[in-house]
Amino acid sequence: MKNIVLFAIMTLITGILSGQPVQDIKLNAPDMERGLTIMKAFENRASATSFSSRELSLQDLSDLLWASNGINRPESGKRTAPTAVNAQDIDIYVLLRSGAYLYDHKTHTLKGIAAGDNRTLVSDRQTAFADAPVMIVLVSDISRFTVGDDARKLSWGAMDAGIVSQNVSLFCAGAGLVTRPRASMDFEGLKKLLQLNSTRHLMLNNPVGYPNE
Amino acid sequence: MKNIVLFAIMTLITGILSGQPVQDIKLNAPDMERGLTIMKAFENRASATSFSSRELSLQDLSDLLWASNGINRPESGKRTAPTAVNAQDIDIYVLLRSGAYLYDHKTHTLKGIAAGDNRTLVSDRQTAFADAPVMIVLVSDISRFTVGDDARKLSWGAMDAGIVSQNVSLFCAGAGLVTRPRASMDFEGLKKLLQLNSTRHLMLNNPVGYPNE
Repeated sequence: MKNIVLFAIMTLITGILSGQPVQDIKLNAPDMERGLTIMKAFENRASATSFSSRELSLQDLSDLLWASNGINRPESGKRTAPTAVNAQDIDIYVLLRSGAYLYDHKTHTLKGIAAGDNRTLVSDRQTAFADAPVMIVLVSDISRFTVGDDARKLSWGAMDAGIVSQNVSLFCAGAGLVTRPRASMDFEGLKKLLQLNSTRHLMLNNPVGYPNE
Repeated sequence: MKNIVLFAIMTLITGILSGQPVQDIKLNAPDMERGLTIMKAFENRASATSFSSRELSLQDLSDLLWASNGINRPESGKRTAPTAVNAQDIDIYVLLRSGAYLYDHKTHTLKGIAAGDNRTLVSDRQTAFADAPVMIVLVSDISRFTVGDDARKLSWGAMDAGIVSQNVSLFCAGAGLVTRPRASMDFEGLKKLLQLNSTRHLMLNNPVGYPNE
């Protein structure tokens, strides 16, 4: 009994310190036949004020991540989002009901970071957005810029985050989903959950879901 | 004769000081039937390394500007690009062979600022891009942010510029045009040409053209 209590306490402490492990999610190849035309997507582009709690399908999630910052030229490894001095500084973190993940563009996989539903760290005080089933969090790792001072690197990181965020917005507008780019979130809580070191800066987030009918 | 010489000198001085006047360009309504699907646009998205010098058609130019930062919801005046705290801080300046212009989203018109071909102020030292017939220049007027300190406002302005730049990139990728987002340009020359006050910050530029076959 003593051992069981000790084990439970240790598990709890480990969980608090490093996050419970969570399985990776292998994403599907992008469905290149889906979606509206680019002009219709620009026509539909709007910042959502609420979200259905309905889960995204695996195909929606797969296409969303590929469109946002996936590899679109396999021969060179180049991607859907350009970056300043080609630093590829933007990482996409994803918070789902099941856990927190890092998008690995090379294997098109969500790498598990921690189990558990921490989506309210993204919605934070704006509880109207807390129902969104997918929270996209954009982080710039400014250590990948090999030129410029820190102010310049942070400015480039902000621009690059804007670029990826608009990929999210336009994919959603063309695929029947809704989103909203946001600069507010629980910065300290997310830094801890996502284990961000000092060169990794939280820039923007995009809750994503189906429209709230 | 004396008067003619004096007039010529005065005209030259006026031209140097304030730019020769240039006519506004009334843009066409966007062609909502054109363009590839959003997924094909993401597949095509790439940063061009050279441009054909062929001029854009008026319809291409019109659709490009509407897609980049035009009004997509006439009832509310809302636009294809979101901005931090809805400040609508990004203005699009356009440099053509004929002159420099400011995009007026309300009337979907290019307002003439100065006559003359100043596109090399955008391509600057990267002469490979000098042939692009259209130079999009993104400026954030940080005075439109009513909250935050200057560092925060500049960060938001950089994100908002990234967002509009990706609209340019994805429109091009879906409409048979090519572009490249760039953070380098002749900052001092452009500030003077575009008559930018101290709250208006040059953020990014996008040369746009047809592919160089």
